[in-house]
Amino acid sequence: MRIASVDLFYLAMPSITSDADGTQDTVLVRIREEGGLEGWGECDASPLVTIAAYVCPRSHGNINPLRDLLVGESLENQYDIRRIRTRVLREALDIEHVHHALSGADIALWDLLGKKLREPVWRLLDGRSARSFPKVPYASVLFEDTPDATRERARGLRAEGFQAAKFGWGPMGKHGEAFDIALVEAGRVGLGPGATLLIDAGTVWGEDHETALARATAFEPFEIGWLEEPLLPDAVSAYASLQEAGPPVDIAAGEGASRFRAAEDIILNGAIDVVQIDAGRIGGITTAHDVRLLAAAQGIRYVNHTFKSHLSLAAALHVFASAQDFDLCEYPAGGSELSRKLVRNPITRRKDGLVATPSEPGLGVEIDLDIVRRFLKPVRIEVGGGAIHETPPP
Amino acid sequence: MRIASVDLFYLAMPSITSDADGTQDTVLVRIREEGGLEGWGECDASPLVTIAAYVCPRSHGNINPLRDLLVGESLENQYDIRRIRTRVLREALDIEHVHHALSGADIALWDLLGKKLREPVWRLLDGRSARSFPKVPYASVLFEDTPDATRERARGLRAEGFQAAKFGWGPMGKHGEAFDIALVEAGRVGLGPGATLLIDAGTVWGEDHETALARATAFEPFEIGWLEEPLLPDAVSAYASLQEAGPPVDIAAGEGASRFRAAEDIILNGAIDVVQIDAGRIGGITTAHDVRLLAAAQGIRYVNHTFKSHLSLAAALHVFASAQDFDLCEYPAGGSELSRKLVRNPITRRKDGLVATPSEPGLGVEIDLDIVRRFLKPVRIEVGGGAIHETPPP
Repeated sequence: MRIASVDLFYLAMPSITSDADGTQDTVLVRIREEGGLEGWGECDASPLVTIAAYVCPRSHGNINPLRDLLVGESLENQYDIRRIRTRVLREALDIEHVHHALSGADIALWDLLGKKLREPVWRLLDGRSARSFPKVPYASVLFEDTPDATRERARGLRAEGFQAAKFGWGPMGKHGEAFDIALVEAGRVGLGPGATLLIDAGTVWGEDHETALARATAFEPFEIGWLEEPLLPDAVSAYASLQEAGPPVDIAAGEGASRFRAAEDIILNGAIDVVQIDAGRIGGITTAHDVRLLAAAQGIRYVNHTFKSHLSLAAALHVFASAQDFDLCEYPAGGSELSRKLVRNPITRRKDGLVATPSEPGLGVEIDLDIVRRFLKPVRIEVGGGAIHETPPP
Repeated sequence: MRIASVDLFYLAMPSITSDADGTQDTVLVRIREEGGLEGWGECDASPLVTIAAYVCPRSHGNINPLRDLLVGESLENQYDIRRIRTRVLREALDIEHVHHALSGADIALWDLLGKKLREPVWRLLDGRSARSFPKVPYASVLFEDTPDATRERARGLRAEGFQAAKFGWGPMGKHGEAFDIALVEAGRVGLGPGATLLIDAGTVWGEDHETALARATAFEPFEIGWLEEPLLPDAVSAYASLQEAGPPVDIAAGEGASRFRAAEDIILNGAIDVVQIDAGRIGGITTAHDVRLLAAAQGIRYVNHTFKSHLSLAAALHVFASAQDFDLCEYPAGGSELSRKLVRNPITRRKDGLVATPSEPGLGVEIDLDIVRRFLKPVRIEVGGGAIHETPPP
């Protein structure tokens, strides 16, 4: 089949806050082939910057708009997706935003190919003999402003049946050690013993690996499953220093990786214990799957990073559905109405509390076009007096 | 002083080819303070994607438009520029394109601060006791389509007085080993003995470090000063493999580095001999200067990458003007009319053939507003039915 169109849709809630809540807007990529089949993908990225990467006028041989590079390409099998990716990354080499933007198209291409071949994406990725293993979902939420409110939120998540939860960002790291410890303790008390408690420091200690070590040590009595992003994504040397000091809890990072090398770098040189990859940022399912294989080869854990809709959750799950050892998945448990309602058939928890990767063709989720229309922000871009982009009808 | 406005200008030649010629368009950043002083910067990046990073609507706490982060900031000294950079990189953490975009603003801030304090940027960077050392400029041009034409081009550059020249991209790596060698030989014959000949492979061997080694060995008899980017920017492990094999010529890379860590990674882990930094891509003068210090500490060579106007050349030179050991500079010797005419006072070669960094306040170059107006592509962006950006009058 041949790619006939690549369409972009900018969706947003009516009001946007400065919380670290990535579900307040989104950008979707729809790819249609000439026969009428379509696939969808979602980027965890600035919608306008992403759209610009698809439609920007050519600057020279290494800056070409992604849409032009995709339309007309042929797509028959998995190797075509990799070939297209290689071509896009070369002919748009000098667009720094290329990986964030390509993520949506790569996911849409896998969705489209799966529908065409009538196979779930995980089977296209890992072969006909692969099996899909359900994951333990951890509810992923932001810290509340106080320990008390955080404890109540944790209780609520436990009452909803979650066996694992992650709290992140918000006040962590901003009011001193005692407050940080109180936040973690509140999470543990609220979840109760036995449940998996994960802590996301949201890069708050920058490059200060000594404070990160002190907090990791202080949090250890609360039996946390990992301490996530105590340092900035690029502070690879600081991660290495932290790990050399031997913190008593696992260190997780990687959600900021916006290209394969960034993940490879923090795995090999930052010596992290858990790598967290967002398929909507790193370049799509293809690149995320490459990182999963690297994690297995290095003997560390792979887990998805997902803080968008269930379209992103589906893409994230297909990447490592067949990897039995990687048994935990990030599961958006809150989020905006836009994010919660974007797909008609969300990936719900089973009665045993686990989450299974869809087995329908493609990603196995269906976009609700009424929601797309309701939250759509039409975009029109003029360069040199003429329109070079206008949002098409969903 | 306080930042009053941040304006973006997209300039382009009337027609854009698919050559690897980055001078065909550009994006300028103008920053004005309340008292009326202004500074200018240039990004080596897709103009539209860059403008989008400045004006995109907020997505959440980690995706804020650069323009909003800059306007209203106070700027009194060098530390303010670093403080502003830290803030922008945190509050726009999840915009992959942030470093390319910030480059122009960072350069404009140094220009503005230098004008305010009546000092050249290199003295603000390296202290009052620093001295500025002239550089040997190497003419930077693309390979012609054939060895014969390349030889004639090299002869012409020598006739223009260049003691050093670099040929890159074009047919290199595309027609087999004998053709590649013929191209290098043509460069040497055309330049004549004694002149510095540099070869830029333009990433053509991807991750294939064995072919890169074979070519490095085959080119050695022509006494090349370095072999540049034989591999893709992110192929750090392949660079390490190439260097372990001990090629007989120096290996240069780094122009693709779009953040400090990318440069640090290829220096520390790719073991390159020469790091080439584009201040218009890596985040500006501030970040480029950090890399220069790292290169000195690691005992490798630092050189600028510049393939834009003399505004970019000035920014590039200030970064390492005071570093006597780093005595070579990339000097755009061709390029579009837009690029050649953008500043009224280009940085010409002295009678001894060397190039000196301007000693006037700021960057020491003056934008020709007639050229800006002549090549301007006005941009208008609407989101949700209303205009969020419109190019102001230059």
